[in-house]
Amino acid sequence: MRRERVRDLLSKVADGSVPIDAALASLAQEPTESLGFATIDHHRALRQGFPEVVYAAGKTTEQLVAIARRIAERGDGVLATRVTAESAPALVAAIPGARHNALARTVMLAAANPPATARGTVLIVTAGTSDLPVAEEAAVTGEAMACATERLNDVGVAGIHRLLGRREVLDRAAVIVVVAGMDGALASVVGGLVRVPVIAVPTSVGYGASFGGIAPLLTMLNSCASGVTVVNIDNGFGAAVAAARILHGATP
Amino acid sequence: MRRERVRDLLSKVADGSVPIDAALASLAQEPTESLGFATIDHHRALRQGFPEVVYAAGKTTEQLVAIARRIAERGDGVLATRVTAESAPALVAAIPGARHNALARTVMLAAANPPATARGTVLIVTAGTSDLPVAEEAAVTGEAMACATERLNDVGVAGIHRLLGRREVLDRAAVIVVVAGMDGALASVVGGLVRVPVIAVPTSVGYGASFGGIAPLLTMLNSCASGVTVVNIDNGFGAAVAAARILHGATP
Amino acid sequence: MRRERVRDLLSKVADGSVPIDAALASLAQEPTESLGFATIDHHRALRQGFPEVVYAAGKTTEQLVAIARRIAERGDGVLATRVTAESAPALVAAIPGARHNALARTVMLAAANPPATARGTVLIVTAGTSDLPVAEEAAVTGEAMACATERLNDVGVAGIHRLLGRREVLDRAAVIVVVAGMDGALASVVGGLVRVPVIAVPTSVGYGASFGGIAPLLTMLNSCASGVTVVNIDNGFGAAVAAARILHGATP
Amino acid sequence: MRRERVRDLLSKVADGSVPIDAALASLAQEPTESLGFATIDHHRALRQGFPEVVYAAGKTTEQLVAIARRIAERGDGVLATRVTAESAPALVAAIPGARHNALARTVMLAAANPPATARGTVLIVTAGTSDLPVAEEAAVTGEAMACATERLNDVGVAGIHRLLGRREVLDRAAVIVVVAGMDGALASVVGGLVRVPVIAVPTSVGYGASFGGIAPLLTMLNSCASGVTVVNIDNGFGAAVAAARILHGATP
Amino acid sequence: MRRERVRDLLSKVADGSVPIDAALASLAQEPTESLGFATIDHHRALRQGFPEVVYAAGKTTEQLVAIARRIAERGDGVLATRVTAESAPALVAAIPGARHNALARTVMLAAANPPATARGTVLIVTAGTSDLPVAEEAAVTGEAMACATERLNDVGVAGIHRLLGRREVLDRAAVIVVVAGMDGALASVVGGLVRVPVIAVPTSVGYGASFGGIAPLLTMLNSCASGVTVVNIDNGFGAAVAAARILHGATP
Amino acid sequence: MRRERVRDLLSKVADGSVPIDAALASLAQEPTESLGFATIDHHRALRQGFPEVVYAAGKTTEQLVAIARRIAERGDGVLATRVTAESAPALVAAIPGARHNALARTVMLAAANPPATARGTVLIVTAGTSDLPVAEEAAVTGEAMACATERLNDVGVAGIHRLLGRREVLDRAAVIVVVAGMDGALASVVGGLVRVPVIAVPTSVGYGASFGGIAPLLTMLNSCASGVTVVNIDNGFGAAVAAARILHGATP
Amino acid sequence: MRRERVRDLLSKVADGSVPIDAALASLAQEPTESLGFATIDHHRALRQGFPEVVYAAGKTTEQLVAIARRIAERGDGVLATRVTAESAPALVAAIPGARHNALARTVMLAAANPPATARGTVLIVTAGTSDLPVAEEAAVTGEAMACATERLNDVGVAGIHRLLGRREVLDRAAVIVVVAGMDGALASVVGGLVRVPVIAVPTSVGYGASFGGIAPLLTMLNSCASGVTVVNIDNGFGAAVAAARILHGATP
Amino acid sequence: MRRERVRDLLSKVADGSVPIDAALASLAQEPTESLGFATIDHHRALRQGFPEVVYAAGKTTEQLVAIARRIAERGDGVLATRVTAESAPALVAAIPGARHNALARTVMLAAANPPATARGTVLIVTAGTSDLPVAEEAAVTGEAMACATERLNDVGVAGIHRLLGRREVLDRAAVIVVVAGMDGALASVVGGLVRVPVIAVPTSVGYGASFGGIAPLLTMLNSCASGVTVVNIDNGFGAAVAAARILHGATP
Repeated sequence: MRRERVRDLLSKVADGSVPIDAALASLAQEPTESLGFATIDHHRALRQGFPEVVYAAGKTTEQLVAIARRIAERGDGVLATRVTAESAPALVAAIPGARHNALARTVMLAAANPPATARGTVLIVTAGTSDLPVAEEAAVTGEAMACATERLNDVGVAGIHRLLGRREVLDRAAVIVVVAGMDGALASVVGGLVRVPVIAVPTSVGYGASFGGIAPLLTMLNSCASGVTVVNIDNGFGAAVAAARILHGATP
Repeated sequence: MRRERVRDLLSKVADGSVPIDAALASLAQEPTESLGFATIDHHRALRQGFPEVVYAAGKTTEQLVAIARRIAERGDGVLATRVTAESAPALVAAIPGARHNALARTVMLAAANPPATARGTVLIVTAGTSDLPVAEEAAVTGEAMACATERLNDVGVAGIHRLLGRREVLDRAAVIVVVAGMDGALASVVGGLVRVPVIAVPTSVGYGASFGGIAPLLTMLNSCASGVTVVNIDNGFGAAVAAARILHGATP
Repeated sequence: MRRERVRDLLSKVADGSVPIDAALASLAQEPTESLGFATIDHHRALRQGFPEVVYAAGKTTEQLVAIARRIAERGDGVLATRVTAESAPALVAAIPGARHNALARTVMLAAANPPATARGTVLIVTAGTSDLPVAEEAAVTGEAMACATERLNDVGVAGIHRLLGRREVLDRAAVIVVVAGMDGALASVVGGLVRVPVIAVPTSVGYGASFGGIAPLLTMLNSCASGVTVVNIDNGFGAAVAAARILHGATP
Repeated sequence: MRRERVRDLLSKVADGSVPIDAALASLAQEPTESLGFATIDHHRALRQGFPEVVYAAGKTTEQLVAIARRIAERGDGVLATRVTAESAPALVAAIPGARHNALARTVMLAAANPPATARGTVLIVTAGTSDLPVAEEAAVTGEAMACATERLNDVGVAGIHRLLGRREVLDRAAVIVVVAGMDGALASVVGGLVRVPVIAVPTSVGYGASFGGIAPLLTMLNSCASGVTVVNIDNGFGAAVAAARILHGATP
Repeated sequence: MRRERVRDLLSKVADGSVPIDAALASLAQEPTESLGFATIDHHRALRQGFPEVVYAAGKTTEQLVAIARRIAERGDGVLATRVTAESAPALVAAIPGARHNALARTVMLAAANPPATARGTVLIVTAGTSDLPVAEEAAVTGEAMACATERLNDVGVAGIHRLLGRREVLDRAAVIVVVAGMDGALASVVGGLVRVPVIAVPTSVGYGASFGGIAPLLTMLNSCASGVTVVNIDNGFGAAVAAARILHGATP
Repeated sequence: MRRERVRDLLSKVADGSVPIDAALASLAQEPTESLGFATIDHHRALRQGFPEVVYAAGKTTEQLVAIARRIAERGDGVLATRVTAESAPALVAAIPGARHNALARTVMLAAANPPATARGTVLIVTAGTSDLPVAEEAAVTGEAMACATERLNDVGVAGIHRLLGRREVLDRAAVIVVVAGMDGALASVVGGLVRVPVIAVPTSVGYGASFGGIAPLLTMLNSCASGVTVVNIDNGFGAAVAAARILHGATP
Repeated sequence: MRRERVRDLLSKVADGSVPIDAALASLAQEPTESLGFATIDHHRALRQGFPEVVYAAGKTTEQLVAIARRIAERGDGVLATRVTAESAPALVAAIPGARHNALARTVMLAAANPPATARGTVLIVTAGTSDLPVAEEAAVTGEAMACATERLNDVGVAGIHRLLGRREVLDRAAVIVVVAGMDGALASVVGGLVRVPVIAVPTSVGYGASFGGIAPLLTMLNSCASGVTVVNIDNGFGAAVAAARILHGATP
Repeated sequence: MRRERVRDLLSKVADGSVPIDAALASLAQEPTESLGFATIDHHRALRQGFPEVVYAAGKTTEQLVAIARRIAERGDGVLATRVTAESAPALVAAIPGARHNALARTVMLAAANPPATARGTVLIVTAGTSDLPVAEEAAVTGEAMACATERLNDVGVAGIHRLLGRREVLDRAAVIVVVAGMDGALASVVGGLVRVPVIAVPTSVGYGASFGGIAPLLTMLNSCASGVTVVNIDNGFGAAVAAARILHGATP
C-alpha cells in the first residue's frame, strides 16, 4: 500500500466519513505486492506491528536489495537478519540510513515514525561469551520492535553466584530471554527465580554431543521450571519477537 | 513457612516497622520443608504466584498424598498433574474440596483466597478432537493460575475456513495456546493472524512418522510465523503457566 | 539401441509386418549400453517416456560428458541435474543446443521430436524466496517431461491471505507441487483447499532445528490434509517426475 | 449445510437464477458444525469429493459415535479409520448399513448416491503377508472414494521373479500403491518398471533396525526410481486418498 | 575359586613360600566357572573388589537363582540388580540372608567378611521424587561396595535455594552422584559448586521430548561445569561402582 | 513345483536328454504358488539351498499354518521364526514332526533328505546370558541349514580372560557369529583374534542409552577389527543364514 | 619382530627342533613395536594374513610415512586407505614400488612374496556411477589381500533389467560385494538371486533424507533377502577384508 | 580478587585475627569481574583449584586476549582450549610465558606458585593414532591441574595383545583416561582389567556410521564393565578435569 492511499484513507477516517474499524479492515485486505520471485506481505505491519522481516539466508544480494527497498519505501522500517558480510554493504548502500551490525548479522532501518516504546524491559541473559551473536540478534530485533533491552552476559550455572549476585537485574525485567548453549541449564535456573515470562534460546555452541544445539534445546524443552517457552536453535530474532508480542500485545 | 509467622511479619509490614521489600525478601529466604523423599518448595507461591505443582508421574500414591497434604495445609491451593485413575481417588479423599478431572488427568483445589483474575483471556485452540486431553490440562492449569480461558476446538488447517470463520474469537484473546499433533501446522497459521503471544504445544497424536510428537515439535520450532514459542510435547500444563506468567507478570 | 535398428523395426511396423505391441516389447528388451563405469539404460524413454536423467552429484565432468553425449545421440533429449558451476560449461559445450540453468543447477536439451504436451498444468508453489532453486529444478524437469508449468511464489502460511487471495491460481491446476522449508505447513493448507494431487517437497532452508530439512519432511509426512504425498528433501526433480507420471500416465 | 438449503440453492441453479460457479462458491463458504469438542467440516465433500474422514485414534467411543452420526445424516457416506475392536460395535450399531473391516480397522458406510467410479484401477502391491492390514486399509479407502482396486500380494524383492512374472498386472494399473516394510525396496523396483504414478507406503513391519518403519520410509524417500512419492508409515488410508486425487481430480 | 584353595594359598603366602605378587597373579589366572548358559567370572572380586554383579534383566528366574547361588557360595556377597517383583522371592529364598529392596529393584547379600569401609562418603542427590528408584539402586550398590552413603532429595534447580541452603551437605561429601531427569540441569549446578568428583546419572523421568532420558543425558554430557562425568540412563548401579572405584581405588 | 514334475525332469537329466544347466534354469523359472494373501516362493530351495523361511511376526496363526503346510508338503523342511507362544501349538500340530524351541521362538521340521552337512563349524559366541534367545535362534537356523554349530556363552569383554582362556574354541571354528548387546565390544575383540569370517549380531539387551540395540549396532559397524560384518538387531536367523551362505556357497 | 629372530626360529622349525604350531604361537606373542605415537601390530600378518592396514584419516603425513615405512620393511606389503591428495606423493616417495590410486584414495605396495591367490572371485557390483570410489577401494583392498575381483557397474534397480541381463556374471562369483547409495535396494535384489555370501556397503551418495548414507544402511540391515551382511557406510575396505576372510579363511 | 587484598587477608589469617574458614568464605564471596561481554569467575580457583578455563571456540581473538590477560594477572595460571592456529600467536604474545601446543590446540601458562602435584598418575590410553589430539588436550590439562600423566598409545582392541602386554602400565595408574573413536571398545576392556576409576572419552574419529562420535559415545555409556564414566565427544579437557577432581578432591 503506497503512502498516498493510506493518507487518503486516514483523512477520511479523520473527517468521520470512514469509521476506524472499517479503515483498519480495508488496510488489512490490501493485496500483497509481487516481485515475481517474492510476494511481499505489506500489511504485516498492520497485523503484527512491524513490517515483514527479511530472512537473508538463501537469498541472493540482488533479491535482498529488491525486497528491502520495497519495504523501506513504506516508511515502517526494515529489518534483515542473517545477512552475510558479502551482502551487507549492498544493502546498506541501497537503503539510506540503514545500519549493519556485524556481530548480530543484521541490517536495520528504524521506522520513520516508530510506535511508542513498550512498557517494561526485555532482559537478555547469556550463559557464555560464545552466545553473544545470538543475543545481539535478539537485541537488535528488540530495538526494531520498539522494546527497551538490557543485557546480562556470561552468567552460566558453572558459577551460579555470578547469576545470584545479580538478582536485582533479573527482578526489574518484564520479560527475560535466556541464551545458552552447551547444557542450556541457565534457562531452568532463571525460570525458577522469577515470575515473569522466560523465553529460552538454545545456541549451537558446544562440544560434540551438543549436536549443533540439540542438547540445550532438549534441556530447555524439559525445563523443570514451569512455563519456560523455547524458540529454535540460534533464533535470537524469534525470541525478541516473542518478547515484543508480550510487551505490545498481551495486555488488551 | 507457617501462617503464624507470615501473619506476624505482615502485621509488622502493616504498621510500618518492616518495609515491604524487606518482608518479601525475608519470606523468600524461608527454609523449605523436607519429607525425606521430597523437599517441598513452600515459597514458590511467593516467587511465582502459585504453590509448587505436583507432577504425579513416577510417584507412588502415598508420596502424592503426603506432598499434596502439606501443600494444601498452607491454603494457597493445590494442583497435581498426570494423575492416574488409580491415584486420583486417594488424592481427592485426602484433600477436602479437591476435584478430579479425568480427561485432563488433574486433581485441583482452589486457593482459599485466590488472587485477582488476570486481565485478558487465554484462548486454547486445538487442531483435532484427539488433542483434547492436552488442552484440558492447559485449561485446568489456567484456572488454577487465576486466568480466564476460552476454547476453540478442532480447527486444524486441513479445513482452513474453520479457523478463518472464527477470526473474532482469535482477535479477543490476550494469549493464544495452540495445541496440535500430526503436522502441527496450526501454530504457524494462527501465529501469522494475530499479534498477541502464541504458545505452541505439540501433541503425541499421529501416524508413524509423527514419532510421538517430534514432527509437530519440529514444525512449531521452525514456524515461519515469527515469535511463536514452544513447550514440550503434550505439555498443556507448561503452556498455561507460560500464559499465566505473561498475564500476571509481564506488565510491571 | 542404435537408430538403424529402430528405423528398420519401425518400417516393419509401418508396413504391418510387425504389430505395434510386439515392436514396443522388442524395444524394451534391447540390451543396455556399457561405458565401463556406467550402464546406460537406453530404453527408459520407452518404459517411462523420458531418457535416463543424469544425476551429476558425485560424477566427474568427464563422466558426465561421456554419459550425456551417448544419451543425446539418441535424439530423445537430455536432462542433467545437480550440475555444478564447474561442470556446466563442459556439458553445454559437448551437447549442441543444451541450456544451463544456474538457479536450477540443470543442463537440458529438448528432445528432437518431443511428445505432445500433457493436458493440465503443474502449479509449483513456494513458501519463500529461499525455496526458489528447488522450485526451479522442478520447473525445468517439468518442461523436459513435456508438462506445462505455472508458478506461485512466496505464499507461506505466516501471511495466509497471500495464498487465499490467489485461489483461482490453485483452482486451475491439474497437479500442485508445494515447495517449502522451515515448518513446511504450506503443504497441509494447500492440500486442504484443493482436490487435485498435491506433491510436497521439503527444502533444507531454515534455522537450527530444521535439521537440513527433516522438520518440513516430517510435517509433510504427517499432513492433516489427506492424500498429500512427499518426495525427498530438496528433490524438485522427483516431484516434477511424479507430476509427469500423473499427467502422462495415470489416465489409461 | 442442511439439505433443505442445498435443495433451495440447487433449484435456483436449475432455473438459471444462480450460476453454477456462484452456487459452488456459496456452498464452500457454508459454516461448519460445532459439537463443542469437534468442528465438523461438512463441505469437505464439496471441496474434495468425500466427507471428512474420522481418524478414530485418541477419540472416545462416544465422540466417535457423535461425529460419525452427524456425518452420516448428510448422506455422503462415512469412513472411520484406526477403529479399535472396542469401538467398532458401537459405531456399527449407531450407523445403519455401516460395515466393520477388522483387518483394515475401518468402519464404512457407502454414500447414498455415490459418484461415478473413477476411470482406471488402483493396484495395491504388498511385499509380504505382514503388510496386509495396511494394504487393506488402502483398499477400503479406495472403495469409499469410488476407485476400483486390484491386489498383488507378497511379491517382495527377495524373490524378484514373483513380481516379474506378473508384469501384466502392473501394466494394466492406472496408479500403483506399494506397501512394504523391512527394506522397502519393492517401491524402487516397481517404480522402475512402470510409467504410471507410484505411491509408496512404508510399514512398521520388521526387525530391530527397522525402527518402526523408519528404514522403509527412508528407502522410499531415496528411491533411485524417479517420481516415486511417499506417505507416512502405515498410512494406507493416505495412499488411497492420493490415488483418488489422481484418478478423480488430476484430469481437468 | 573355592575358599579352601584360597586359604591354602594364603597360608603359603603367610609362611613366605609363595610371594605376594605370585599369589595374586595365580588367583587372577583361576579358570572361570561355566554353567553352560553362563560363564561366572569368579575372580572379579580379586580384580575389582566385589564379585560379579548379576544384571537380572533378560534372565529367567531359574538362571538368576543358579548364578546367584554359585556366587553366594564363595562368601564375598551377592548383588543382583533390575530384579523384577516376580523373580525376587525365589532369589531371596535361595540365598539365606539376602534382602530385597523393591524400590531399588535389588537383591543383596553382604559379604561374610566385608572389606573396610572406604574413607569418605558418597552423597546421592536427586532433582525430584520421581528419581528415587535410581538413587536407591545407587545407595544399595554403594552399601554393597563398602562405601558410606548420604542422601539429599528433591533439590532440583527450579527452586535453587533448596540446594544452596544445604551447602554444608555438599561440602562434606567425597564423591557426589547427581540423579536427575527432565532437564538434568542439577548436575551442572552441583558441578560448579564443589571440587570433588561429580558423577551424573540421567533418568528416564519426564515429558515427551525427554525421549526416555536422552534430554538429561545430553545436558550432562554438555555440562558447562568442567569435569562432570556421566553414566548411562537410569544407571544408578554404575554410578555407585564409579564412586567405589574412586574411594577404594584411586589413591595408591 | 510338485515333486512329480521334478522327478520327470530329473529322469531326463539322468538319461542325458536334458543337460544339467538347462534343468536347473527351468526349475528356477517355475511359477510361484499364490494363496491370495501370500505368494510362496517354492523354488527358493533351488536358488538358495533352503525353502522360504516363514517370518511369523505380524501373521495370524491361520496364515502361518496355511503357509507352513504348503512348504512342508514339498519335503524340503520348514523353518518358522519369531513364533509366539500362542501360535506355536497350532503350527506343531499342523506339521507332523515339527519341533518348537521356546527360547529361540522357532518351529522347525527337518528336510526329508537333508543336504550334506557343510564342512566347518559355526561358532556362536555370546557376551552375556541375556543374549541367549538370539543365539538360540541362530543355532536352530544353522541346524536347519545343515551347518554344525558350537557354543561359547557369556564371555563378554568385562572379563576378557574368559574369552582369552578359550582360544582353542575360537581357533577351530570356520565362521564365528558374535551375539552381544550393551556395548557390543566383543565383536571387535573376536574379530582381532581370528582370521575366519566374523558376523556380528547386536541385541536389544541393555540399559537406557542402548536404545533397543542401536548402541551395539553402531559399535559393530564401526569395529576397529577389519572385515567384521553386521546383521540387524536381534537377527540371529540372518547371521546363521549368512554363515550358511559362506560354508555352502562361497567355495566354487 | 626383527627378521634375524624370525630366521633363527624358522631354521629351528626346519630342523625339527621346534614344531610348527609352537613357532606360530611364539610369533603371535612377539611384542609390538612402539613409535611413541603409534603401536604397530607387526604380527597381524600372522594372525590375519595381511599386515596392519594404515587408516590415513586423522594422521599427519609425517605419521603416515613413519608407520608405513616400518610396515614396508617387513616385506609383507603395505596398504594405506583414505589417503588424501596431499599425503599421497610423500607416501609414494617414501615406499619404493608403492602405487597411488586417486579414485580409491589408496597407496599400496604388494607383498614381496604374496600368498597364493584365493580360489573364487569377488564380484563388486555398484548401483550407480557415483558409487565408484567406494567400489574402487574394495577392489584395491581385494588385490592387496590376494583375491581376484570382477566388476559390474551401474546396475541399480531403477532399471532392473540391467542386472537381470547379467545373471551369468552373478552366477560365477564366489562372494558378492554390493555397493549402493540412495535407496540401497540393490543388495536385497542381488541377495535374492544368488546363494553365495553377499556383503552390502551403503554409500553416502544421495539427496537430503539419505542422511549421509543412513538410508541405504538401514535398507541393507533390513534386507528381506536372508543372510545379507552389512559393513559401515562407504567402507569398501571392510567389505573386501570380509570377502578375503571368507575366501582365505572359512574353509578349514 | 587482586593479589594485594589476598595478601592482606592472609596476613590476618596468619596472625589469627581472621579464622581460616572465615577467610575462605570471604574469598569465595568476592564479586566476579565483568568485561561487558564476559563475566570472569575469579574465585573458581578457590572453589575448584584452578582458574576459569577459557573455551576459545566461538570467541574472537580480541575477546580471548582480554579474558586471558585478566586471568593471568592473578598469578594462578591460564589455560585456553580449542585455540585456533589464527588466535594462538596473539594469545602467546599477550601472556608472557604462555606456551602453545598445536596438537592439543591449547595455550597454557603455569601458575606462579602451583599447588603440590597430586599423588598418583593419570594414565591416558589411546586406541589409535588418530585419537592423539584429544589425548594431548587431556595431557596438557592434567599438567595445568598439577597431575602427573603417563601415555599409552595405539593399543586398540583389534590387536588386544598390544594392551595385555602392557598390564604393568595399567596397574600403576591411579586414574585411567581412555580415548577412543570408531567402536570405542577399548574402554570396556580396560574397565574390566583394573579397579581404579576409568574415564572414557569418545572421539569423532571414524567411518560414516560413527556419526561424529556417537558410536563410541554409546558404546562407552553401555560399557559392560561396571563403573566406567563418560565425558563428551572429543572432550579431553573434561576428562582430565574429572581425573584432577579425583586425585585432588575425593580424599577428604
